[in-house]
Amino acid sequence: MTESFDTLADAQRALATAIVGAPGAAQRRAMAKTITLLESTRTDHRLAADALLNALLPFTGRSFRIGISGVPGVGKSTFIEALGLYLIERGHRVAVLAVDPSSSVSGGSILGDKTRMEHLSVNEHAYIRPSPSSGTLGGVADKTRESMLVTEAAGYDIVIVETVGVGQSETSVAAMTDMFVLLQLPNAGDDLQAIKKGVMELADLVVINKADIDPDAATRARAQITSALRLLGMHALHGHPDHAHGGAPAKPAWQPQVLQLSALKGAGLPEFWAAVSQFRDLQTANGRLAQRRQQQTQSWMWERIEAGLRERFRAHAQVRQALPAITDDVRAGRVAASVAARRLLDLSTSP
Amino acid sequence: MTESFDTLADAQRALATAIVGAPGAAQRRAMAKTITLLESTRTDHRLAADALLNALLPFTGRSFRIGISGVPGVGKSTFIEALGLYLIERGHRVAVLAVDPSSSVSGGSILGDKTRMEHLSVNEHAYIRPSPSSGTLGGVADKTRESMLVTEAAGYDIVIVETVGVGQSETSVAAMTDMFVLLQLPNAGDDLQAIKKGVMELADLVVINKADIDPDAATRARAQITSALRLLGMHALHGHPDHAHGGAPAKPAWQPQVLQLSALKGAGLPEFWAAVSQFRDLQTANGRLAQRRQQQTQSWMWERIEAGLRERFRAHAQVRQALPAITDDVRAGRVAASVAARRLLDLSTSP
Repeated sequence: MTESFDTLADAQRALATAIVGAPGAAQRRAMAKTITLLESTRTDHRLAADALLNALLPFTGRSFRIGISGVPGVGKSTFIEALGLYLIERGHRVAVLAVDPSSSVSGGSILGDKTRMEHLSVNEHAYIRPSPSSGTLGGVADKTRESMLVTEAAGYDIVIVETVGVGQSETSVAAMTDMFVLLQLPNAGDDLQAIKKGVMELADLVVINKADIDPDAATRARAQITSALRLLGMHALHGHPDHAHGGAPAKPAWQPQVLQLSALKGAGLPEFWAAVSQFRDLQTANGRLAQRRQQQTQSWMWERIEAGLRERFRAHAQVRQALPAITDDVRAGRVAASVAARRLLDLSTSP
Repeated sequence: MTESFDTLADAQRALATAIVGAPGAAQRRAMAKTITLLESTRTDHRLAADALLNALLPFTGRSFRIGISGVPGVGKSTFIEALGLYLIERGHRVAVLAVDPSSSVSGGSILGDKTRMEHLSVNEHAYIRPSPSSGTLGGVADKTRESMLVTEAAGYDIVIVETVGVGQSETSVAAMTDMFVLLQLPNAGDDLQAIKKGVMELADLVVINKADIDPDAATRARAQITSALRLLGMHALHGHPDHAHGGAPAKPAWQPQVLQLSALKGAGLPEFWAAVSQFRDLQTANGRLAQRRQQQTQSWMWERIEAGLRERFRAHAQVRQALPAITDDVRAGRVAASVAARRLLDLSTSP
C-alpha cells in the first residue's frame, strides 16, 4: 500500500461512513470494496479490514440470520429467490451470502452465477455475494461471517447464508446463523442421509420443497422426518447436546417443525415466514437468541485462534525442516506419534 | 526425581526388558509400572515414558486391535468376557483397555471394577486395564493408545478397546483400532441413534446381542441395520468418506456385516470370530490394514500437536492476562471475533 497512514485511515472512514449511510449505489460500492478487502490475503489489507470491522461493529447484529442448506437439485436458488422477493415486498432488505468450500476448486458452484437468481440479483433491496474462494472451509466461513457483519452495518435486516448439502459446511453455517433451515426433496431415504451427516439435528425447520410434484410422497416424507426429529430431540434431552447450537437447554423452547412448500409456484411461503417469525419471537423472548449469538462469537474466536496456531506451527522454519523425516518415522512405526508430537512442539518454541 | 540419569536409564531398560520378556508376574508388574508412568502428569515421568515407548516400539504392532462400543446395558462386559475366554482357549493372549472420558468424573463407569469380568480378570493370559482418568477425551485416548503399545510389546496378540456408547469416544476408538464393532440391542430405533451419532458408519461389524430374548425383534433389527449400512455405504461411495477410517477406497474391500449373538449363552461367538478373521485376512491381503494404521498414527501425531499448541497458548502469561477482558468484549459485540483472535495470537508470540 502506498498511501500514508492518515490517507489510509481516511479511506477507511469514508468506507465505513458509506456503508452505514443511506442505501444506494455508493453504499453498494463501499460494501463490495470492504468485502474484497476482507477477502484479501495481504497483511496490510487485513489490518485495514480489522480496523474497518471494529468501526462497523456497533452497527451490526440487528438482522435475523437464516442458514439454508440442501443437496444440489433441491431447489435452493429458486427458494431463496422466491423468499427474498416475498420479504422485499414486505419492506425488508435482504442479503444473500454463501459458504461453499468447493468454490475455490470448481470456480464457484453456488452463487457464482448471479443469473441463478435473476430477479433478486437486480433488485435494489437485495445484496447477493458469492462464496469467497479461500481454499479451506474455515477460511471460507470466516470471510462469510465478516461479510455478514458488513451487510448488517449497511442495514440489511434479513441475512440468508446458503450452503451446499455436502460435507461439513452445514455445521459452519449453523454456527453463524440464528436459525438453520434444511431443504429436503419429497423422497424417503434423503432423511437418512441428513441424519447420518448430522445435518438433521442442526435443523430448526425442515422444508420439503417440490411438494406439489408428488403430494403423497411429500406427506410420507413429512411424517418420517417429523418422527426422526422427535427421536433426535429426545436424544438431545437426555444429555447429549453435542451440536453446533451451543448451550444445554433445560427445557426446549422450540420444537423443530416440518413444512411442505413449492418454491417454483410460490406456494407455502407465508406459512414458512410465519414459522420463522414464531421461532424468532420465541427465541428472543426466552433469551436463547442472544445466548446463541454470544456462544457463536466466542467459538468463532477460538476457531480462528486454533487455525492461527496451526498455520504458525507449520510455517516455523525448524518444524518445516524436521516434519517430513519425523512424519516418515511415525508412519513407519519407528517413533511413537506422541513422542514425535512432543519433539515437534519443542522445535517450534526455538527462535 | 531423585535418581541420577544413569539409574533412571537403567530402571527404564529393566522395565523394557521385563515387558518384552517372558509372560508372568514380572512382566505384569513392569506393564503396570510403565502404564502408570505414561499416565503421570509429571514432566520427568513423561520424558521417561517417551524413552520407554520408543524402546518398546519395535516390538509393537503385531496384535489385532478391535474396538468395541455399545450403549450401557447392551452387555459389553459379558460379551468381552465371553470373547476373551473363547480366544484364550484357542491360544491367544488378550488385553482389554478402555476409553471412558467420564471416568474422571464418575470414578470410572466402565472397567473401573474388574469384577465385572470376574473370570477374565483372573486369567493369566488376559490383561485388563481400566480407562485412564485424565479429564479430556484427547488425554484419555492418548494414554490408552500408548497403553496399547505396551500390551503389544508384552506379546498380547489381541487387544480389545472398549468404549461407552455415548459422545465422541467412539471416533477415538475407531481411530486407534483395526476393526470397529458396534453392539446393539434387538430394538428398532437404536439404529437411528447410532446413525445419528455417526457411530453406525464407523462399524465394520454390527452385533445384535441378547438376540435370544426376542428372536423376531432381533431379525427385524438385523434387516433394518443391514439396509441402513447399505445406504450409508452407498453414500460413502459417492465421494464422502468423511469418517475416521481414513483413505478413500475406490473399491470397497469389506462390506460391513450384521450378526446375531447371545453373549450370556455363548451362542454366536464362533461366527463372530470367523467374521473378524475374514475381515483381518481381507484387509491384510489388500493392504488396507497397513494403510489404515499409517494414517491413524499420523493423525494421532497431529492431534497431539494441536492439543499441545492449545495448552501452550492458554498458558502464555500475556494471553492469560488479556483473555478474560477480550472474551467479554467479543461476547458483548464490542470486538469482532476474528480481530480478537488476531490480537491474542500476536500477544502469544511476545516473549
